[in-house]
Amino acid sequence: MRLEEKNISSRLIYDGKVVHLYEDEVLLPDGQSARREYVKHIGAVCVLALTDQGEVILERQFRYPFHKELIEIPAGKLDSADEDPKEAALRELREETGYVPTRITYIGDFYSSPAILDERIRMFFAEGLMRDEQQLDDDEFLEVFTMPLKALVDEILAGHISDGKTQAAALKVYTMLQQKGRTI
Amino acid sequence: MRLEEKNISSRLIYDGKVVHLYEDEVLLPDGQSARREYVKHIGAVCVLALTDQGEVILERQFRYPFHKELIEIPAGKLDSADEDPKEAALRELREETGYVPTRITYIGDFYSSPAILDERIRMFFAEGLMRDEQQLDDDEFLEVFTMPLKALVDEILAGHISDGKTQAAALKVYTMLQQKGRTI
Repeated sequence: MRLEEKNISSRLIYDGKVVHLYEDEVLLPDGQSARREYVKHIGAVCVLALTDQGEVILERQFRYPFHKELIEIPAGKLDSADEDPKEAALRELREETGYVPTRITYIGDFYSSPAILDERIRMFFAEGLMRDEQQLDDDEFLEVFTMPLKALVDEILAGHISDGKTQAAALKVYTMLQQKGRTI
Repeated sequence: MRLEEKNISSRLIYDGKVVHLYEDEVLLPDGQSARREYVKHIGAVCVLALTDQGEVILERQFRYPFHKELIEIPAGKLDSADEDPKEAALRELREETGYVPTRITYIGDFYSSPAILDERIRMFFAEGLMRDEQQLDDDEFLEVFTMPLKALVDEILAGHISDGKTQAAALKVYTMLQQKGRTI
């Protein structure tokens, strides 16, 4: 692999609850060395959940790094490195929104910021939603609402939805359903 | 703002070249306190650049956090916090790929991982490409290639492109051009 960067040494800088920061020295393809600062993350899931009426389940949540509320699809970290991603997606959807789907499909990975973060978000598409009870974590505060998929896509095209995974998952499901000739 | 988390205290853990890690204590909406671990980032740009033949300019690059090569659209950090994002996008496109566009349009923001990272990527759409010379940074190694936009969208739908910003920007431009009735 001509482009490969080989590990010379690795140093754990910070071992937090979510963020695990490393500073590695690497050997570049030309024989020089360079420093790579990056965060290890346990991995996550997100769910584009669509009601039978064609509405997407969305959350409004305060995101501290941006000091503002963002609109996002349901998502969350894996409970453990070996948690089944589909189970995690079902768990997060049920806990955060109270919805339980009858069909859920893996639609690909989403790497958030591959230069500095190894977070891998498994994306799912869920349909056939039934209502159960919301069960938020102690430090989790969010509002659930719905929006027609077509309206969400229009908001994304207008630049009104900044969350990356929400843009990717919504546009992906929209394009897939269009290709299948489904009315949206 | 009912969902707001207020800062109680802030501690800089690591002040790297790219990653600036903070550990803050925050006041939650219910009066409890919680710890927030997050990374500050100077901000970035990415460019979906389309040739007159409908081909997207792509890069194959080794991403150390994933220990593998990824396919991504051209992107890069701002040189300074006040660098004009459009200038940064033109600079990164020219340096990394050697292409210079005659038209470039801002198509919205992409927040990479809003729970733990304040990275804001401004997305651009570039057309009318002319060739200039590639000028890579000392520690930058990448291969440039092209793929028809429709083929890239198919690869994304098949789950073969994992980079988040590449998925979002390609699907966004594809949907926008389709809505305008452009042949893709």
